[in-house]
Amino acid sequence: MLETLKKIVYNANMDLPRYNLVTFTWGNVSAIDRSTGLVVIKPSGVDYERLTPDDMVVVDLEGNVVEGDLRPSSDTPTHVEMYKALPKIGGVVHTHSSYATSWAQSGLSIPCYGTTHADYFYGSVPCLRCLNADEIEDNYEKNTGLLITSSVSDKDYMATPAVLCKNHGPFVWGKDAREAVHNAVVLEEVAKMAYRTRLINPEVETAPISLIEKHYLRKHGPGAYYGQNK
Amino acid sequence: MLETLKKIVYNANMDLPRYNLVTFTWGNVSAIDRSTGLVVIKPSGVDYERLTPDDMVVVDLEGNVVEGDLRPSSDTPTHVEMYKALPKIGGVVHTHSSYATSWAQSGLSIPCYGTTHADYFYGSVPCLRCLNADEIEDNYEKNTGLLITSSVSDKDYMATPAVLCKNHGPFVWGKDAREAVHNAVVLEEVAKMAYRTRLINPEVETAPISLIEKHYLRKHGPGAYYGQNK
Amino acid sequence: MLETLKKIVYNANMDLPRYNLVTFTWGNVSAIDRSTGLVVIKPSGVDYERLTPDDMVVVDLEGNVVEGDLRPSSDTPTHVEMYKALPKIGGVVHTHSSYATSWAQSGLSIPCYGTTHADYFYGSVPCLRCLNADEIEDNYEKNTGLLITSSVSDKDYMATPAVLCKNHGPFVWGKDAREAVHNAVVLEEVAKMAYRTRLINPEVETAPISLIEKHYLRKHGPGAYYGQNK
Amino acid sequence: MLETLKKIVYNANMDLPRYNLVTFTWGNVSAIDRSTGLVVIKPSGVDYERLTPDDMVVVDLEGNVVEGDLRPSSDTPTHVEMYKALPKIGGVVHTHSSYATSWAQSGLSIPCYGTTHADYFYGSVPCLRCLNADEIEDNYEKNTGLLITSSVSDKDYMATPAVLCKNHGPFVWGKDAREAVHNAVVLEEVAKMAYRTRLINPEVETAPISLIEKHYLRKHGPGAYYGQNK
Repeated sequence: MLETLKKIVYNANMDLPRYNLVTFTWGNVSAIDRSTGLVVIKPSGVDYERLTPDDMVVVDLEGNVVEGDLRPSSDTPTHVEMYKALPKIGGVVHTHSSYATSWAQSGLSIPCYGTTHADYFYGSVPCLRCLNADEIEDNYEKNTGLLITSSVSDKDYMATPAVLCKNHGPFVWGKDAREAVHNAVVLEEVAKMAYRTRLINPEVETAPISLIEKHYLRKHGPGAYYGQNK
Repeated sequence: MLETLKKIVYNANMDLPRYNLVTFTWGNVSAIDRSTGLVVIKPSGVDYERLTPDDMVVVDLEGNVVEGDLRPSSDTPTHVEMYKALPKIGGVVHTHSSYATSWAQSGLSIPCYGTTHADYFYGSVPCLRCLNADEIEDNYEKNTGLLITSSVSDKDYMATPAVLCKNHGPFVWGKDAREAVHNAVVLEEVAKMAYRTRLINPEVETAPISLIEKHYLRKHGPGAYYGQNK
Repeated sequence: MLETLKKIVYNANMDLPRYNLVTFTWGNVSAIDRSTGLVVIKPSGVDYERLTPDDMVVVDLEGNVVEGDLRPSSDTPTHVEMYKALPKIGGVVHTHSSYATSWAQSGLSIPCYGTTHADYFYGSVPCLRCLNADEIEDNYEKNTGLLITSSVSDKDYMATPAVLCKNHGPFVWGKDAREAVHNAVVLEEVAKMAYRTRLINPEVETAPISLIEKHYLRKHGPGAYYGQNK
Repeated sequence: MLETLKKIVYNANMDLPRYNLVTFTWGNVSAIDRSTGLVVIKPSGVDYERLTPDDMVVVDLEGNVVEGDLRPSSDTPTHVEMYKALPKIGGVVHTHSSYATSWAQSGLSIPCYGTTHADYFYGSVPCLRCLNADEIEDNYEKNTGLLITSSVSDKDYMATPAVLCKNHGPFVWGKDAREAVHNAVVLEEVAKMAYRTRLINPEVETAPISLIEKHYLRKHGPGAYYGQNK
């Protein structure tokens, strides 16, 4: 079942240690097959070096396991809520990558300080509020997903494909698993440079909107002229 | 004697350079065999690339060498005090890992800023006071052990399996040597992110207790649902 | 056409990931053949691992493609303006290298704090203003080049072979592509140390002019005595 | 001539890139043969990957080349002054290692914040003044050596085997080339942790003298009990 997607999701998960986004098992990637509404996701707490494509777990949009011998990622209810409410996304990544998580822990959104950021994220990457005690107590992971989706579903969420969950870490997405991982790598690099930028100049201001727009549109939309896709 | 435990302790020591926790010989791991009360520990000042399982030294709970051609780690009296006073621990790690040691040098406990920390350490990782001149003069390493054990023995010390010794560095433990090293890797990553978190936002507050509790209990205790151990 | 220069430019581009100056495809190197006025440059958005010497694109000084199946770097108009206005340069590098870009995002020039800097850059590496909305809207990349050349063409631009474009990143040059990449590596290291220097001592002052001059002249000009070129 | 020492000095130089202490050719190691008063040193500006033991240059204590086809390091006069005035040293290292150089650029001595520092350097690593314009103009490298030796020759310079030259970088020494490189690696790690320590806690104080003394004497002197040398 969904063998091709399992391989894609497996490869996307293996890219997390390759790009130094995870320590031990602290990350997971999923992807959805929109035709069947089934989600393929990494199993919970399995070492990357032991992972195989067959270990990937298939769940439905209620979060029920449809196929797989292993328990799915404990963050599965978050992924599922995102696929339900955000129809354009095809892949979701959650990591504790070091710089992005440091911003999440600081409770601050990552401002757009330059073109590296603007090439991928239109404006700041928002840091959402922490869940309250009730939301944490019951259905914590589902409530994390509901907070994310209620924060971004009325915006152009494909133009800023990431949020920071306060005191937790980033959730990143894309049109598929590969693009989601790509965006997670960029987010970490952007978070790193934003951190250094602030320390060099605590009075720094964000990049002007005209520059943000220009760089975003160089890479996205009908007038894009970066790369080889004509 | 204790050949299996020697291999385990050897492997745990070799994980220190593998996870970039040590420069030169600045670290040591030990484990205890509770049935005999014997401790296996790395020899003092031997390069990791030359270390073999047979080099591991066996000492008793008085710190006397029972087997081994080499002198045991100079920190052996600290390890021994910990095994005597903390019956649940099976492995101890000491390193000068860069971020955790920087916190120890700063004299500050590492606050719990997020879920990465809470997944492994329940609340802040305490920075203990520096020993006084008398404690340093005689039986320095033993007194280090006594300070650690007196600070944590009346607490749930398996829930926060690390301390920082001021002006020195971290001591970390676990139910066995492997878990102790795992916790030492996590401590370094958590120390790194806490450092960056403070620099991004000097006014940052710790994570709410409900989130700390939730994440700790996701991974530990009877209701744990992270990973594959059902 | 220009097969030798294509290999040189290819190798110079491959040095960017080798020296950790780029993430994904975020960088480009070009070189000019002054006898024909033709520029060889990396194609836009092609992964480094898939790049071959034959992928290099040849453009003229109007930016028109003279040879090559791929679209040239989107920054080509910037490179071209630099070759037109700065006759001594033979190679140009643009990256989003992490520390240099953080300075560019902070809007501050990199002060000359020591001899490492002075060995390669005579005085501070200037951070230019951000382009205004009109300059960004039309001919953005060309206007970037015009801003650079108008800022440095009346100075000894070979003595300080780099600028930072505010909210963007560094442009670096040299007498050929290899030297330009060499200078880009140095710039990143110098940017990193300047960052740390400021954080250690926010009141730090620049190195005295006598030291800057001495070190610059140890490596450059008729009295140079560093290295083996006699 | 001095074939064994050439190999030792070659290996010590090759350890600089191995331990990430140098970018390009920015470092040099020498050693002295006290019986003949001859110094073996790296040639100036030669890439590490092309270096061979035979490239090492032999100079006398006037700095004259006695053997070797290549020009010796431009810092040779500094090394020579150190060997002349400091009879206990057998090896000297100069690098632009990133953290130590950042401290040198900041103009501040590296305080002894903990036992990692105290294990190798008794008290702070001093940052010397910058040379004045006259000292820089003529015999710059020799004057650098004279400043170093006049600053440390009346102290126990083997107990604190390093200085920072302001706006420049570290000079480190030891009883031989290997120990000098070892100390240079430690200095960089100590500089890194001191940097982070200050940023975590700007009010931090140095370690108490009793702890510094204890750790220094654990590793050095007749009562040392660290390692396997009995």
